[in-house]
Amino acid sequence: MVLAVMSALVRPLVEPQLPAGIEARFYTSVEEMLALAPEAEIGWFDLEDKAQMIEAIGRADKMHWLNSVYAGLDFLPLGELAERGVTITNGAGINTAAVADYTLLGMLAVAKDYRSVVRAQDRHEWLHDSPGKMEFEGARALLLGFGAIGQAIAARLAPFGVEVVPVRRSGAGGALRPDEWQARLGEFDWVILALPSTAETEHVIGAQELAAMKPSAVLVNIARGEVVDQDALVDALQQRSIAAALLDVTTPEPLPADHVLWSLPNAHITMHLSGRAQASMFRRAAQRFVENLHRYVAGEPVAPQLDPRRGY
Amino acid sequence: MVLAVMSALVRPLVEPQLPAGIEARFYTSVEEMLALAPEAEIGWFDLEDKAQMIEAIGRADKMHWLNSVYAGLDFLPLGELAERGVTITNGAGINTAAVADYTLLGMLAVAKDYRSVVRAQDRHEWLHDSPGKMEFEGARALLLGFGAIGQAIAARLAPFGVEVVPVRRSGAGGALRPDEWQARLGEFDWVILALPSTAETEHVIGAQELAAMKPSAVLVNIARGEVVDQDALVDALQQRSIAAALLDVTTPEPLPADHVLWSLPNAHITMHLSGRAQASMFRRAAQRFVENLHRYVAGEPVAPQLDPRRGY
Repeated sequence: MVLAVMSALVRPLVEPQLPAGIEARFYTSVEEMLALAPEAEIGWFDLEDKAQMIEAIGRADKMHWLNSVYAGLDFLPLGELAERGVTITNGAGINTAAVADYTLLGMLAVAKDYRSVVRAQDRHEWLHDSPGKMEFEGARALLLGFGAIGQAIAARLAPFGVEVVPVRRSGAGGALRPDEWQARLGEFDWVILALPSTAETEHVIGAQELAAMKPSAVLVNIARGEVVDQDALVDALQQRSIAAALLDVTTPEPLPADHVLWSLPNAHITMHLSGRAQASMFRRAAQRFVENLHRYVAGEPVAPQLDPRRGY
Repeated sequence: MVLAVMSALVRPLVEPQLPAGIEARFYTSVEEMLALAPEAEIGWFDLEDKAQMIEAIGRADKMHWLNSVYAGLDFLPLGELAERGVTITNGAGINTAAVADYTLLGMLAVAKDYRSVVRAQDRHEWLHDSPGKMEFEGARALLLGFGAIGQAIAARLAPFGVEVVPVRRSGAGGALRPDEWQARLGEFDWVILALPSTAETEHVIGAQELAAMKPSAVLVNIARGEVVDQDALVDALQQRSIAAALLDVTTPEPLPADHVLWSLPNAHITMHLSGRAQASMFRRAAQRFVENLHRYVAGEPVAPQLDPRRGY
């Protein structure tokens, strides 16, 4: 029997569909997870506390396959897992629509200053003019990262009349190449970061890039906090060298209550909620996991597999 | 010379492009507007205070052409203006993109409960799960009103994976006919009102229609407050027979500070800001007005003309 260890939260979704040859064990606490990990050939160890998740993976000496609902697993010791020969399936695709929908929500909320509308309703005050008037029609957006999420964002922006210019190695279809976009930053009303977090993409937006953006431009980060030099971003927001930032991700997460970003009037913080803002994330993830369990016992490759050398 | 009376706000946009044969007069106050009105052959009398706007129009005995930036002019004495032979150009089209963009913003904000995210940022609190998880993908929306704004909303919803079913007289293209939609209300996650306000559309959504909606459904009104039986809506929201309402329009406007709608946790009030949430409304309206002034002196028909019998 192959032992698969996972949270009791997914038990009702997984157990009725288990293939023959798999024995499932379910944990209801971190302690149980850590105790079960050494026996697991298959582990689904997702935790919000990444340090404990890493500890469980470190203890899982017999693990052949690690599953996660997260698309970005840059916080894991990927090199070590590759050396150990562990196959990793990530959540790529499961959150695509949720993250893209949330990106549009955040961009529209920044454009129209919806926060001020919310606060006015809380005061029972009828506003007589819109606190935000940025228009989407005719706006230009630079899109760094043209994977599933980037493409879903581009598709949603199209009928609003936003011209989306992606960055792609090929430069195909009106895209800018990786060596071209920095010189063109000043042409865009929006700069959207939908990149995987790797050593290459760390601080891809720093002081120089922020200085090159329009003063009216908005930075949107739905990738990882590390993709942006956050100290430089705080400076740019304080000096208003850019208009605003929409940050689904920050460094660190959670952001401490006394962090300066919370109180900057032009920082819009959405607490890494984008991917979670869906009713069926666990249903989707569990269904994919079940399909992969059937593949695993049949000796077929599980999917989608994370490439530990690329990091995504 | 033909005398045209308009606000001084549009003077810099209109004056440089005035055709020969038109003399423009600009008011900077309601008093000046009321004083100039009796001499106006052409009047652009927009005011937020509709009673004063109606008074100016009543005084404008010589008026042949009334211009407005508003798309819906149901608050004017349209029958009387028709009898007087006054041509009316409205703002149809000028607000289309702004209203459609705002509708998407509001729908996404309701779906993901963005208000709670805004309030959490105000408290410097990192939320660990999304307070709202309604998904757009696979949702079904009934769209009452398939004019320019309704079509623009449908186009924007399409890439989110929302199935939009419009109501059209013809029933063409998967639409429901006007005698069909009421029996089908229970099939929809969203009911979007983008109708013109006429005698026919008053209280088109009443107690019966609200009772027929899903308990999880959201009512979206970007038309006019009068299109909904607001007392019945308050009851439905209090009893949670529907999940929420997104109300860009209310009865009356502005909503008094002590009105019950303000404090219902499932009423999202956006204060008729949708059409105003754009930087270039006045530029667009002034440009169209200038083009119409040229047509007027050339004896050509101005456009778009409101049909006073239909009311839109």
